[in-house]
Amino acid sequence: MLGERSIVRADGRKVDELRPVRITRHFTDAPEGSVLIECGNTRVMCTATFTAGVPRWRKDSGLGWVTAEYAMLPRATAERTDRESVRGKIGGRTHEISRLIGRCLRGVADMKALGENMIQIDCDVLQADGGTRTASVTGAYVALVDALNWAEQHRHIRSAKKVLTDCVSAVSVGVISGTPMLDLPYTEDSSAMTDMNVAMTGSGTFIELQGTAEHRPFTREELGTLLDLAEKGNKELQAAQRAALAED
Amino acid sequence: MLGERSIVRADGRKVDELRPVRITRHFTDAPEGSVLIECGNTRVMCTATFTAGVPRWRKDSGLGWVTAEYAMLPRATAERTDRESVRGKIGGRTHEISRLIGRCLRGVADMKALGENMIQIDCDVLQADGGTRTASVTGAYVALVDALNWAEQHRHIRSAKKVLTDCVSAVSVGVISGTPMLDLPYTEDSSAMTDMNVAMTGSGTFIELQGTAEHRPFTREELGTLLDLAEKGNKELQAAQRAALAED
Amino acid sequence: MLGERSIVRADGRKVDELRPVRITRHFTDAPEGSVLIECGNTRVMCTATFTAGVPRWRKDSGLGWVTAEYAMLPRATAERTDRESVRGKIGGRTHEISRLIGRCLRGVADMKALGENMIQIDCDVLQADGGTRTASVTGAYVALVDALNWAEQHRHIRSAKKVLTDCVSAVSVGVISGTPMLDLPYTEDSSAMTDMNVAMTGSGTFIELQGTAEHRPFTREELGTLLDLAEKGNKELQAAQRAALAED
Amino acid sequence: MLGERSIVRADGRKVDELRPVRITRHFTDAPEGSVLIECGNTRVMCTATFTAGVPRWRKDSGLGWVTAEYAMLPRATAERTDRESVRGKIGGRTHEISRLIGRCLRGVADMKALGENMIQIDCDVLQADGGTRTASVTGAYVALVDALNWAEQHRHIRSAKKVLTDCVSAVSVGVISGTPMLDLPYTEDSSAMTDMNVAMTGSGTFIELQGTAEHRPFTREELGTLLDLAEKGNKELQAAQRAALAED
Amino acid sequence: MLGERSIVRADGRKVDELRPVRITRHFTDAPEGSVLIECGNTRVMCTATFTAGVPRWRKDSGLGWVTAEYAMLPRATAERTDRESVRGKIGGRTHEISRLIGRCLRGVADMKALGENMIQIDCDVLQADGGTRTASVTGAYVALVDALNWAEQHRHIRSAKKVLTDCVSAVSVGVISGTPMLDLPYTEDSSAMTDMNVAMTGSGTFIELQGTAEHRPFTREELGTLLDLAEKGNKELQAAQRAALAED
Amino acid sequence: MLGERSIVRADGRKVDELRPVRITRHFTDAPEGSVLIECGNTRVMCTATFTAGVPRWRKDSGLGWVTAEYAMLPRATAERTDRESVRGKIGGRTHEISRLIGRCLRGVADMKALGENMIQIDCDVLQADGGTRTASVTGAYVALVDALNWAEQHRHIRSAKKVLTDCVSAVSVGVISGTPMLDLPYTEDSSAMTDMNVAMTGSGTFIELQGTAEHRPFTREELGTLLDLAEKGNKELQAAQRAALAED
Repeated sequence: MLGERSIVRADGRKVDELRPVRITRHFTDAPEGSVLIECGNTRVMCTATFTAGVPRWRKDSGLGWVTAEYAMLPRATAERTDRESVRGKIGGRTHEISRLIGRCLRGVADMKALGENMIQIDCDVLQADGGTRTASVTGAYVALVDALNWAEQHRHIRSAKKVLTDCVSAVSVGVISGTPMLDLPYTEDSSAMTDMNVAMTGSGTFIELQGTAEHRPFTREELGTLLDLAEKGNKELQAAQRAALAED
Repeated sequence: MLGERSIVRADGRKVDELRPVRITRHFTDAPEGSVLIECGNTRVMCTATFTAGVPRWRKDSGLGWVTAEYAMLPRATAERTDRESVRGKIGGRTHEISRLIGRCLRGVADMKALGENMIQIDCDVLQADGGTRTASVTGAYVALVDALNWAEQHRHIRSAKKVLTDCVSAVSVGVISGTPMLDLPYTEDSSAMTDMNVAMTGSGTFIELQGTAEHRPFTREELGTLLDLAEKGNKELQAAQRAALAED
Repeated sequence: MLGERSIVRADGRKVDELRPVRITRHFTDAPEGSVLIECGNTRVMCTATFTAGVPRWRKDSGLGWVTAEYAMLPRATAERTDRESVRGKIGGRTHEISRLIGRCLRGVADMKALGENMIQIDCDVLQADGGTRTASVTGAYVALVDALNWAEQHRHIRSAKKVLTDCVSAVSVGVISGTPMLDLPYTEDSSAMTDMNVAMTGSGTFIELQGTAEHRPFTREELGTLLDLAEKGNKELQAAQRAALAED
Repeated sequence: MLGERSIVRADGRKVDELRPVRITRHFTDAPEGSVLIECGNTRVMCTATFTAGVPRWRKDSGLGWVTAEYAMLPRATAERTDRESVRGKIGGRTHEISRLIGRCLRGVADMKALGENMIQIDCDVLQADGGTRTASVTGAYVALVDALNWAEQHRHIRSAKKVLTDCVSAVSVGVISGTPMLDLPYTEDSSAMTDMNVAMTGSGTFIELQGTAEHRPFTREELGTLLDLAEKGNKELQAAQRAALAED
Repeated sequence: MLGERSIVRADGRKVDELRPVRITRHFTDAPEGSVLIECGNTRVMCTATFTAGVPRWRKDSGLGWVTAEYAMLPRATAERTDRESVRGKIGGRTHEISRLIGRCLRGVADMKALGENMIQIDCDVLQADGGTRTASVTGAYVALVDALNWAEQHRHIRSAKKVLTDCVSAVSVGVISGTPMLDLPYTEDSSAMTDMNVAMTGSGTFIELQGTAEHRPFTREELGTLLDLAEKGNKELQAAQRAALAED
Repeated sequence: MLGERSIVRADGRKVDELRPVRITRHFTDAPEGSVLIECGNTRVMCTATFTAGVPRWRKDSGLGWVTAEYAMLPRATAERTDRESVRGKIGGRTHEISRLIGRCLRGVADMKALGENMIQIDCDVLQADGGTRTASVTGAYVALVDALNWAEQHRHIRSAKKVLTDCVSAVSVGVISGTPMLDLPYTEDSSAMTDMNVAMTGSGTFIELQGTAEHRPFTREELGTLLDLAEKGNKELQAAQRAALAED
């Protein structure tokens, strides 16, 4: 791994270096939590909507619910993508990512402490340059914290802290021309042999691990290196989350 | 009208005063034109996508096409609105506004000079506080200019100037508790007896006029006052457009 | 304007002359109000359905609701248009017109006097020759009156008269080759530089004003002439409504 | 059967008596064939659209295509039914009937003689009082003849007569309180134990036979009586078709 | 008919001979009734789901409900057919068949004896070689019996026997090159001039009769022969049902 | 891990023991590859459809395409699930799994060697008892091999062996009450703290790794144990695939 650290990437980063992260809270006024997260050129607007009460299937369970929806604006990408509303249906990729974000957040939220309340996360990608789903998880967590604090202040829940069992962030890692690398922008991502998204808690455990190797299978050794990189990246992202949440 | 000018509105404006306007060009990197327009608290991201070629029904006509799609992010509003992609269909209001924006831009674009090329405008409302459709028109025009200039530089079209026959902006006016006012924020808009959206060219002619009086019909005299206000507002918005386009 | 009056149109009419109007009440048996309106070759069947009770979002408000749906039969037009049911979605134009008709009728209906009852207007175009949306408004008003009278007779509401604050009709006007004209058939409509639909009450005030100038913007002076024409046309249409309602 | 003939029905008819039939050709102007058929209070508008060319799957086969779509206007019935366009999908009943009408007409049309041309039949029910699908078949045949004659006059096909191998009409029969009856209006239809729709050619053969006995199975003997009634009814309907086609 | 009996078909059967029938109960574990029916190469999995309670429109009627859904797996056929879930809508043929199966089963079920309970039949075609809808009816009846027995054992209903007023099976018949034949496989079916599906009760009465003669109308005499064949076939199918239900 | 091996599960298996696997080839006749795979009570029908040619977006690339669709029959589960065709849209879970299966198979298929041909995999779950997606991958691989052999025999491709770069199977692992276990049936799966699906090649590398820990994050050490179990399971599944493919 040491040797690989001397490789310089297209954007000048080292193999184990994150792109610059910027987290802007209170990005818009209406939502209970509203965050703009920028990871390099990737920009995602994450809002958290707090609603007293839960969907019908969850009623009288004493438990809350956290869910997420992900979408790309049509011109977040180099080529314009048709709106899913116009096509009349949601694509598989969108579904997959929405579900991933929801699971990551539920992985650090105590549904009992939330009580019968619902939090809906919306992650809308304004600009896409790789890693939109992991940036969404990282930004959504901050929006979630803000929404829970709002709910505590407005006495919908007893304690925001009791709902949150840990923090969560996510990052992508992948093998590019044989070299494992951290935080892939679009050009790297599309040429990756292996591509993995790793969501981790503040205490260093895994919530989601999604590795895909359509182009070349990966060995258990490569997996080890990728997880090392992901751990390093997630620690730094969690520091950025803490810094953002410290401001006010 | 003089007397009315002394009325002070909830946000401190005079009856014939616009909300502060801010137009940010190059808001995102990918689109040929990308504009963030802010009218008070209303914020709309307007992108223009240039594509060589036209849809099938327009082929071999020698004419271009300009079209628009409008959408609200789920939490642009005080209450979260469900995504139209999730509901599987586009609502009437969205359709209505998308069509309005398209007509306004086509009203100042010479389809022959554009040649067989297409420009797709996307207006996505990040935050809604009244006047989202008129802000969309005003911002979209600037994105359109940028996309046409890009097309000229990349030799897809001969001359951006020849495509644009004039500039266009739009503003809302309405009668609130009997007083005609310019540029309504959400609270005024929802209590308006009469509500009118007026799109005008730089030469002071009308492209679109949509007055609706579900709550109290309006007289021809009131119409006159509303059009005076709209003319004043549109002139100022066009000055803001020019100022934004002068930068670079 | 005097000079223009000598212009003779393709169908022999003067510039300020309506096409022949025929309003047939009780066109079908089942609806509470059922009207066939014919404006020249345009024929629209307008039915009004009275239902005790209101949709969920309107419950316990003490207020009623009036809504409208517009549709074209597939072969109302020269070329067959695919059914929206078959395509699985409603187009923008249909949405736009349905909403317009609903607003026009609500503009003359007192929701409090209606009480928690709903009236659904259906306007189905059997034959289209321009002006289908304005004919729909004019015919729908008559169907609405019949449905309210039915509701009064069946003691669902106290008084039909108290619900109706005024009458409403609508007509199209436009600028054809530089000349403002009243009540455009399809051939004129499709070649119009400017096209405006004007819904007015019996007392001469405006409920809806929708001017669109995709092909050539219009001046304030032209607007004045167009509104004069619309006023004349609407007065005549309202006379036809009164005549139809006087029969029985 | 003799004894049964003395039974008098709610509307005064004998058990083997059709409701009054009225067939109006050229009901609207645009379609190549346009027919209003009235069977008692049931009223269906049937149009036939001739298009040169066939759908892709039929190309280069030398064969034509005849297809049909059936729909009910929302207030054709006592209770308003929601539009299928609004619900976003076509119901099973609509599909079933559209397919039935298409098969009946194809049953008397020679696809080779039609050549690579398409005829689309639209049957829209303005008022429903039982037997809408059989009235549709009977009316659609007349519209088909008119469209074929139009196509012959406009030299799209050689000979309308060669396309039509026979005429076709349809009628409903059913067992009401144990008595087989011809041509059921809504009240009889909904109380029928057995309900059968029978489409027959001019030469007395069957094209479609759809008997359903959700409420009480029927014996082979009852079937015989029902077919006798259907034969009588179809002969009279075909006489009405001939009479309508003789006018001009 | 005697002469025709000497005709030998492609698969060696006589004109009045059924394909081999195999009915496997308890094909899967979860459903209250689960049957695999094989008629020659046609294989349909029929499950019956018992649910206490009825849909909203049926509440407080004291009556139960039996309904059915039919579908083909994509590769049941020689050419793969797209999934209706992927296409986003159910085709006319599927609707038609689902409704047919439902009516057949309701034709032998006493809704009062069922009480406010619902049975949902699912017929999924694993392999299609003609007669899938009739095999579905025949198999679904056996699944229905199993589900009713389950419901009796679990005390949801008093008596399965009281619900079932008779048994029901269905078979296809048709005229191939002028010869009436029983139980058509795909190759015969697609070349049939006339095609009829006949559902009969154990007592020999008809529940559904669907004859279609898109390619050549049929005479009343041919109808007689077809019904004779159908009667023979259904008797044998009902024997197979009884045999399957006798095992356990 | 040794200690854990003494734990006995509800179904009597050891923690590192697979459920009995049964792979039946040529399950149905029509598809180029047709496999029924049974893993314990989970039963999935996997078919492979070979089509000469590729979708439009892949034309003239010289490359083939392999894709997959997954679906559950409504009564594969204890409670009936509504058909996605009836609901009019495909759910997120279905999308997610279909995409996973497609990626796994593409991970062992050389698109160049396949040439411009397409293979569509359909995995339909007849009975679900946990691990339906991993059983689908394992069964689909066998169907893929059969379809490629068919294509070689019919000279659509040069060599089936050259297309397949390796074999692939998948298995689920998870942590149940603190103990890592192999191949989870439904009851274990739904109570798992952590749940991971692992697709591996015959050479022991990873193609897909999807770990999710909605209920309790997992440590890197647990991950290690889970991967050991998955490796053992996949080796056994690949032996079963080889055995099935050896027969004929």
